[in-house]
Amino acid sequence: MNENVRREMYDQAKEWVLKSGEIIRDSLNEQRIIKSKEARNDLVTDVDKKIELFFVKEIKRTYPKHLILSEEGYGDKEITGNGTVWAIDPIDGTRNFVNQKKNFAVSVAVIHQGVGEIGFIYDVIEEVLYSARKSEGAYKNNKRLGNLEVKKELEEASLSFNHELLCESDAFDRNAMERIANKVRSVRSKGSAALEIIQVAEGLSDGYIAKKLSPWDVAAAIIVLNEVHGIATRTNGNKINLFEEGTIFVSNKGIHKQIVLNYLKDWQRKLI
Amino acid sequence: MNENVRREMYDQAKEWVLKSGEIIRDSLNEQRIIKSKEARNDLVTDVDKKIELFFVKEIKRTYPKHLILSEEGYGDKEITGNGTVWAIDPIDGTRNFVNQKKNFAVSVAVIHQGVGEIGFIYDVIEEVLYSARKSEGAYKNNKRLGNLEVKKELEEASLSFNHELLCESDAFDRNAMERIANKVRSVRSKGSAALEIIQVAEGLSDGYIAKKLSPWDVAAAIIVLNEVHGIATRTNGNKINLFEEGTIFVSNKGIHKQIVLNYLKDWQRKLI
Repeated sequence: MNENVRREMYDQAKEWVLKSGEIIRDSLNEQRIIKSKEARNDLVTDVDKKIELFFVKEIKRTYPKHLILSEEGYGDKEITGNGTVWAIDPIDGTRNFVNQKKNFAVSVAVIHQGVGEIGFIYDVIEEVLYSARKSEGAYKNNKRLGNLEVKKELEEASLSFNHELLCESDAFDRNAMERIANKVRSVRSKGSAALEIIQVAEGLSDGYIAKKLSPWDVAAAIIVLNEVHGIATRTNGNKINLFEEGTIFVSNKGIHKQIVLNYLKDWQRKLI
Repeated sequence: MNENVRREMYDQAKEWVLKSGEIIRDSLNEQRIIKSKEARNDLVTDVDKKIELFFVKEIKRTYPKHLILSEEGYGDKEITGNGTVWAIDPIDGTRNFVNQKKNFAVSVAVIHQGVGEIGFIYDVIEEVLYSARKSEGAYKNNKRLGNLEVKKELEEASLSFNHELLCESDAFDRNAMERIANKVRSVRSKGSAALEIIQVAEGLSDGYIAKKLSPWDVAAAIIVLNEVHGIATRTNGNKINLFEEGTIFVSNKGIHKQIVLNYLKDWQRKLI
């Protein structure tokens, strides 16, 4: 993608992302008194749909030829990988949205001819915007993020993954995760894939593993991660096609290869 | 404890807790450029000791008869449970302190004749002070926390516990934790016992389970939790003696009994 085109789209998308955060915060304020489970679930569904529709409308109006991959289904059905595609998750971390009213994010990526060009992760409650343009660096609000430290000692590493990966499954090998958990210094789980990957990009966590994520969950955060020289692959070490769902393992360069080779290479037993 | 005495001690302790946060923030700012693992570990050790010594000095000067239970060992060795005892953790969540420079807290409790009277949990980076006086309510900064909603459906619950509890162990039954993990809506792990309990007290999480915690890890947060009608017991349902270390299970009233009876009663196999 041409650098000028990329910058122009970045500025436009940034405006929409910030606006979407405003809409979400307003919705939460209006609904502060919600008590029942049903009402909370309705709220997240309403907000999810409202935000996705907002993006779809703006994008289709401004860039009628672009395609949209999104969670709630208002985007396009047939995505070939050609042209320009937006991957959008209006609320990544919906359970946190419901339970905590924080620790969730808006995730927006622009992919051109299969290559991630622009990524935004907006932590709506903290009002922190992570963003990146390909080859132009990653930013936390207006501050450029430094390249990741290359840590090599697994014993010093802090990873994050869902507790589910330590439970019995015929889809993956729980024992491999147990060996990892026993090897590293600490394991955490925050509950938003986008924010977990961003934590790696910020150097606050050394790696993140997940068993099944969709393009809109990870594309934007991976674009940010790439700019600080982090690595994102499938758990078997394969390259990620940003239009397909699948496992994911992101980390800094120092530990990526050893974790894939020693723990994750044959971790996945079947596609789920 | 007499109400007036309690309030006076509360005011005094609050001053010290806020001051300790200031010292920690200053230490982090001074050391912003620390890169190596050794230097980071030294920093946490230094700050831990500095803060504990600060409290010990102030308490011994102001209340020479009081005893102190604390992690770094500058407190008293023999604690009988009589009189007034302070339980202090200068930095709860040391791994987060090292890796993230956030998600840790200062924890200070005052226990009189075995009863928790005053509790402070200070999230130093967010500058949020959680506090409680027995029978006088719990506060987040100056805002009173409401009583916990009594949720009953485990399927809707969000729990937190360390991933370690899903790994093989001769000290506890990992299968029980797997059954819990498969039953509830979500499981998270933040990495500071004090802040995990506080999340339950705030209604952001429905429960927290841990295998071995010391008085200074939990006393202050339990005092806060009690004031919003949360429940704290050992995992087998037994009452907690605030001077002993052991397992812990805190939650709202709605799910406590069913989790103990169906999952945790025989979970612990031996003391560790």
